[in-house]
Amino acid sequence: MPELRKDPITGRWVIIATDRVRRPSDFARETVTIKGGRFCPFCPGNELKTPPEVLAYRTSGRSNESGWNVRVVPNKFPALRVEGNMERQGEGMYDKMDGVGAHEVIIETPDHMATLSDLPEKQIESVLWAFRDRTLDLKRDIRLRYILFFKNHGESAGATLEHSHSQLIALPVVPKRVQEEIDGAKRYYDFKERCVYCDMVRQDAEAGTRVVLETDFFLAVCPYAPRFPFETWIVPRRHASHFETADAPLLENLSWVLRTLVRKMDKVLERPPYNYVIHTTPIHEAPMAHYHWHLEVIPKLTKVAGFEWGTGFYLNPTPPEEAARFLRDAGLS
Amino acid sequence: MPELRKDPITGRWVIIATDRVRRPSDFARETVTIKGGRFCPFCPGNELKTPPEVLAYRTSGRSNESGWNVRVVPNKFPALRVEGNMERQGEGMYDKMDGVGAHEVIIETPDHMATLSDLPEKQIESVLWAFRDRTLDLKRDIRLRYILFFKNHGESAGATLEHSHSQLIALPVVPKRVQEEIDGAKRYYDFKERCVYCDMVRQDAEAGTRVVLETDFFLAVCPYAPRFPFETWIVPRRHASHFETADAPLLENLSWVLRTLVRKMDKVLERPPYNYVIHTTPIHEAPMAHYHWHLEVIPKLTKVAGFEWGTGFYLNPTPPEEAARFLRDAGLS
Repeated sequence: MPELRKDPITGRWVIIATDRVRRPSDFARETVTIKGGRFCPFCPGNELKTPPEVLAYRTSGRSNESGWNVRVVPNKFPALRVEGNMERQGEGMYDKMDGVGAHEVIIETPDHMATLSDLPEKQIESVLWAFRDRTLDLKRDIRLRYILFFKNHGESAGATLEHSHSQLIALPVVPKRVQEEIDGAKRYYDFKERCVYCDMVRQDAEAGTRVVLETDFFLAVCPYAPRFPFETWIVPRRHASHFETADAPLLENLSWVLRTLVRKMDKVLERPPYNYVIHTTPIHEAPMAHYHWHLEVIPKLTKVAGFEWGTGFYLNPTPPEEAARFLRDAGLS
Repeated sequence: MPELRKDPITGRWVIIATDRVRRPSDFARETVTIKGGRFCPFCPGNELKTPPEVLAYRTSGRSNESGWNVRVVPNKFPALRVEGNMERQGEGMYDKMDGVGAHEVIIETPDHMATLSDLPEKQIESVLWAFRDRTLDLKRDIRLRYILFFKNHGESAGATLEHSHSQLIALPVVPKRVQEEIDGAKRYYDFKERCVYCDMVRQDAEAGTRVVLETDFFLAVCPYAPRFPFETWIVPRRHASHFETADAPLLENLSWVLRTLVRKMDKVLERPPYNYVIHTTPIHEAPMAHYHWHLEVIPKLTKVAGFEWGTGFYLNPTPPEEAARFLRDAGLS
């Protein structure tokens, strides 16, 4: 019997197939391979082919020279621009505003051929520090309301350049899905006086069936009502609403958890394309008791039909308990 | 300067690129071609290879024989089942229920090689009648709350069989995106005492810039804040909340509008994969002054990055005014 499950945060219902469960080998997967051999603007030596850097962690060299480990540059084709004003304007019944914001690229390594999961823990930790440092810098711009970090890995997950990178978009509005999570978490909090993510961490850690891995600081878990097969969230065990409040031990541990999770996905799903995104509280909000930052990883396994676009209704052919078991059991050499 | 635009119904913001506008020829398109030549369970003569039909319009033959023009059968691999009970159950903090519902396939023509846009108007009208007749039948099952008609055309839009067909899913819950539209339209109505779709039809018909085509009964329009390039909505001019109240003249005209729109897309975008979905009011609700059924057509042109999945935030490289102009100007031979 297929099961309908409800996400306790957003209230979204999902159909979980139980009759025709799809296991890792059932997916027609694209395996991501780094080809190299072509000109790459993210490689050391080509620094002048990108807009001037806004941040770099370097062991040698000057700005916009080689010698960096992690480098952050504005996107050459930005979706949003720093200039412009924030006034909302009407157009009859409609509303619009200038596309003010920032769109930056975090180049995660000087090594063209390495994927995120190939990188040493220390290197991934530096990437996470870059996320934090860019947030603290952009937070000073009071026009911006939300900063989103995300990664598209592999062509079918939307990556256009293969050199390992993440992106940030700083927005003058809060993205709808984040706002829905915040609103849903608020309703739960109003009713229970507890954070829904904290409750989730507690219940899922105890049940164990959807847990992929756990540390003192984080739980990596396939959520109860996931939209996608093998969707996995990394949730801090201790309540915190803003990603940028993470301290050194937390980022160090997150680096290990993220690396391990992606390596497990690489093993079980044969180096799949994937996306991840960090959901955090809007930057100018005070700490919230009801919202809890986290990182969502979504391997791109299914050809999602436009049906889902049209309805917000998802059909997931792999129960999260199955997905978690595969990922949990994947031994890493 | 990129523009942020807000959908007046759901409140979703979209980034409309204005710097690097993408025109039809800029998209790396998959052109849908019907290959034929393989066994097809939807072809006449193979009626016994599908579950027994629940509806057929026929000129000859008996049930589950050839001689039909349009045939409706349960999906052989249903996402939901008719049996089961509707009780919601808790699992600690989580909620679930049996996957009760119906999942049917509407075979739109006996001709394997014809796509929807190749069909005569009368044939498309029969398909729309099948939607209506199935709704009226399924409506008698009080466990069901919502019926959704949708079509996946072309492999990258999620079609697994190439013989032209639509699908219906009858659900025991209202899909999230439909509920959001209803809630958003209600807020607008509470404030203005007018239907937001009626206002949209009036303002867009007058401005003309986003209109693709108009008849006495319908406006086909690229919405102000579309998520996808060339997304087009077909909206009845006269207010009606439930699709199934459509009468013969309306369905006849809708058939012409849908056929013409898809033929225009075929011409401008070289027979692209696409999806359409009908958004209507939950079946057991009384007529609503604030919600207005409509049909959304979304050509599948862009490789949507998981970023959008993670955020509900869309970046659309083609302003709807441009898309509408291309579609409006496309002459059909």
